Amino acid sequence: MAIVETSITPIGTGTPSVSKYVAKCHEVLKEYPDLEYQLTPMGTILEGDLSKIFEAIEKMHEVPFDNGASRVSTLIKVDDRRDKKGTMEGKMRSVLDKL
Amino acid sequence: MAIVETSITPIGTGTPSVSKYVAKCHEVLKEYPDLEYQLTPMGTILEGDLSKIFEAIEKMHEVPFDNGASRVSTLIKVDDRRDKKGTMEGKMRSVLDKL
Amino acid sequence: MAIVETSITPIGTGTPSVSKYVAKCHEVLKEYPDLEYQLTPMGTILEGDLSKIFEAIEKMHEVPFDNGASRVSTLIKVDDRRDKKGTMEGKMRSVLDKL
Amino acid sequence: MAIVETSITPIGTGTPSVSKYVAKCHEVLKEYPDLEYQLTPMGTILEGDLSKIFEAIEKMHEVPFDNGASRVSTLIKVDDRRDKKGTMEGKMRSVLDKL
Repeated sequence: MAIVETSITPIGTGTPSVSKYVAKCHEVLKEYPDLEYQLTPMGTILEGDLSKIFEAIEKMHEVPFDNGASRVSTLIKVDDRRDKKGTMEGKMRSVLDKL
Repeated sequence: MAIVETSITPIGTGTPSVSKYVAKCHEVLKEYPDLEYQLTPMGTILEGDLSKIFEAIEKMHEVPFDNGASRVSTLIKVDDRRDKKGTMEGKMRSVLDKL
Repeated sequence: MAIVETSITPIGTGTPSVSKYVAKCHEVLKEYPDLEYQLTPMGTILEGDLSKIFEAIEKMHEVPFDNGASRVSTLIKVDDRRDKKGTMEGKMRSVLDKL
Repeated sequence: MAIVETSITPIGTGTPSVSKYVAKCHEVLKEYPDLEYQLTPMGTILEGDLSKIFEAIEKMHEVPFDNGASRVSTLIKVDDRRDKKGTMEGKMRSVLDKL
């Protein structure tokens, strides 16, 4: 069970807007009902089996190419904790409880 | 006006838990009432004047050292858009409208 | 053909040193003779087939767990260019030629 | 004394090539003779006083805007070790010695 943030950015398209690509990337996530995910202003956070997450991100990475981009920069940050079950909700609560 | 995500991680403490440090980092943000911010499961997203954000992150970066850490890894991702006013809320809406 | 930088960091091991883990991660790369790679002060840069790279990084990500860590933070940055063959050497030369 | 990797990427420029911007970013570094730096295929690694590094990166971040970009994504990864003097060369050697 891992928590992974990813952001997928086309480089060199003629527009600074990337929301079209982000929305199309989220279409891929419909193929992964076992993965929890959350859109944030800076990326998409996924929660679930790490291999499944990598598989989903590899497909999401292709989406800008399928939509005309010729270069894509994808950032992936994995937080994988095995001493206890790391969840998005649990991470938030453990900080909020201490604020 | 920029949107910046940061995560600040102590390296080599004797515990895999970092929520204590994250909560103390958020104390710093009370000194920056002009900055909007949002906690996510993978970091803290800040919105506002970029120089002010860098100043706040530099102070947040010190917090784990002040609390016993001897090594800190800080990741900062800046999204700075100047053709229009980029806000956290605006970025979310522009994707959600296309889902 | 993609170029991918990764850094794999154990969290909470009780020592700020991570070089032992980095060196053991590089052992994994011996299983991937088709991948070019370069160690830098901030990570390891890999060049080759993106699926092979993801496969190698997924194995590298396990190494700290195999060596006693209970939490691992792995950062992966993919630069995937398809209008021309992106290589580590070509990227360096295209900047150095302009300095 | 910190070691910081940064990559500065213009978004939406109409060309997938970014080397022109990277080279112009390196011009900024001539104003910082106290900072060591190393170009890699995935970014520029700086070594020195963290405040000076942040100052330099803030200026480098402006370069694509000065050259026509309207959106810039800047990634910054700080490795700050205070139990011993962390240098680029020392980090490399401590891994290479264990390979």
